[in-house]
Amino acid sequence: MYNASSLPKEIIKVNGNKSYHQSDFLAVEEPLEIQVSFGDPGPQVQKSICVTMRTPGNDLELATGFLFTEGMIREASDVLSIKQAAPLENTICVELRQGINIDLKKLDRNFYMTSSCGVCGKSSIDAVKTICQIERKELSGLKMAAATIYHLPQVLRTQQDIFDFTGGLHGCGLFDEAGQLLLSREDVGRHNALDKLIGAALFHSLLPLHHYLLLLSGRSSFELIQKAWMAGITMVAAIGAPSSLAVQMAEELDITLIGFLKNNAFNIYSGSHRIIPSIYENSY
Amino acid sequence: MYNASSLPKEIIKVNGNKSYHQSDFLAVEEPLEIQVSFGDPGPQVQKSICVTMRTPGNDLELATGFLFTEGMIREASDVLSIKQAAPLENTICVELRQGINIDLKKLDRNFYMTSSCGVCGKSSIDAVKTICQIERKELSGLKMAAATIYHLPQVLRTQQDIFDFTGGLHGCGLFDEAGQLLLSREDVGRHNALDKLIGAALFHSLLPLHHYLLLLSGRSSFELIQKAWMAGITMVAAIGAPSSLAVQMAEELDITLIGFLKNNAFNIYSGSHRIIPSIYENSY
Repeated sequence: MYNASSLPKEIIKVNGNKSYHQSDFLAVEEPLEIQVSFGDPGPQVQKSICVTMRTPGNDLELATGFLFTEGMIREASDVLSIKQAAPLENTICVELRQGINIDLKKLDRNFYMTSSCGVCGKSSIDAVKTICQIERKELSGLKMAAATIYHLPQVLRTQQDIFDFTGGLHGCGLFDEAGQLLLSREDVGRHNALDKLIGAALFHSLLPLHHYLLLLSGRSSFELIQKAWMAGITMVAAIGAPSSLAVQMAEELDITLIGFLKNNAFNIYSGSHRIIPSIYENSY
Repeated sequence: MYNASSLPKEIIKVNGNKSYHQSDFLAVEEPLEIQVSFGDPGPQVQKSICVTMRTPGNDLELATGFLFTEGMIREASDVLSIKQAAPLENTICVELRQGINIDLKKLDRNFYMTSSCGVCGKSSIDAVKTICQIERKELSGLKMAAATIYHLPQVLRTQQDIFDFTGGLHGCGLFDEAGQLLLSREDVGRHNALDKLIGAALFHSLLPLHHYLLLLSGRSSFELIQKAWMAGITMVAAIGAPSSLAVQMAEELDITLIGFLKNNAFNIYSGSHRIIPSIYENSY
């Protein structure tokens, strides 16, 4: 099966003392340049703000999700138009509505990490808190049963099996309280996969995502928890390990963070109050 | 065991219908700001060129390796001094020797991806080729037996087990023709792990690395093959999948690229001429 995210390739498979030629598929990686046009008051400015190595497909979602999770736009209507010369082309032009301006000094993707108090994990978290616009009053709404959480990787994997022949894509998905998959997206870059997912949720007017759990196919890092928080997500579960800063951020923002989710088991790093124990379970 | 790259953390382990509290370790993730001071002729300029989320430790190697793999310096002697206020502090200041200047317009980490011919994988590869200074005449020197390659993940894993209690670090290692491990480094970010490794090789005057195989614990991407190429590496093996652009780049630069290396098996995506078949093996 051919699609935009995989590329056929003749490879040599070596196994023990045998080898043979075989057709295989590669996860496609191509640069995407995101350009933004804005300016009010004053003349319109067109500026290239980012080149990311991504898997082609869902590019409009990726650009919109990126602008949103980086705090440059607050809602879908902040985007006046979004253009790609042709589907899967490597440049996207996003025109912002009047009144939306981007601080060019802040365009450095790492701007939020250097604050007046110095370079540290704490200042990185503080900076993210100041750029997030979502109301937090409903934060404790979602709860999910441990037994439901056990099933989520299998659901995401089934979905990934359809699209990913390559074994080379990161996946992420949004699940409701009952464990139903709402949306999933894939990419060679895990931050891109999440930006596509949040961009899609924005297009479908689903934000804030207080009532959905985010499942990540890999590890959880500062950057991924930041993006989840920007979209109002309160529960994040990952198949892999979390970093120290992902855990610190989850604790400070009251996000439930789960790691090493596999084989009917997981670790809770933060926010255990949102997990409903099984009937025979010890209380947390 | 405590060290700078792991942090103790009380977690809740949930397994089937049981749960219990347990002490665990997290992979540490903290920002590192790299500042460069340069200027000849003209006044000295001090500039913050990058903030990367990294695991503390081997920070001088990381900064030096980053400057080298991004094409800003060509050899260790281009660095006049390199300072960190205290070990593991989050800011590094690198003073470049007279005659080394950095084009501030090129400081955007993605500068090499937008060329006059447009944004595409091909232009990304072409740009990398123009910034690499290493002589390529010895490129075909290294050959390695399939049976030797099978053992490399186990050797790297043994090394990682010593340092990584967290399951959250990417590892990479340099191996000689006989499968002996020369150097290994770890980080929450896979590009940081490789920059640390190449920085260490630079400090030990080992470059160009024509005679070593690079093993990656994860997937291989454009960015990782670029960094390997900058250091003169001609064989890269990864436990995970390669991206399409990693393979295209390896083909164009005559790098041997191996993926899915596990359980006495692997795939060859490029450069099979450097792999010595087993005695009973079909020829490639």
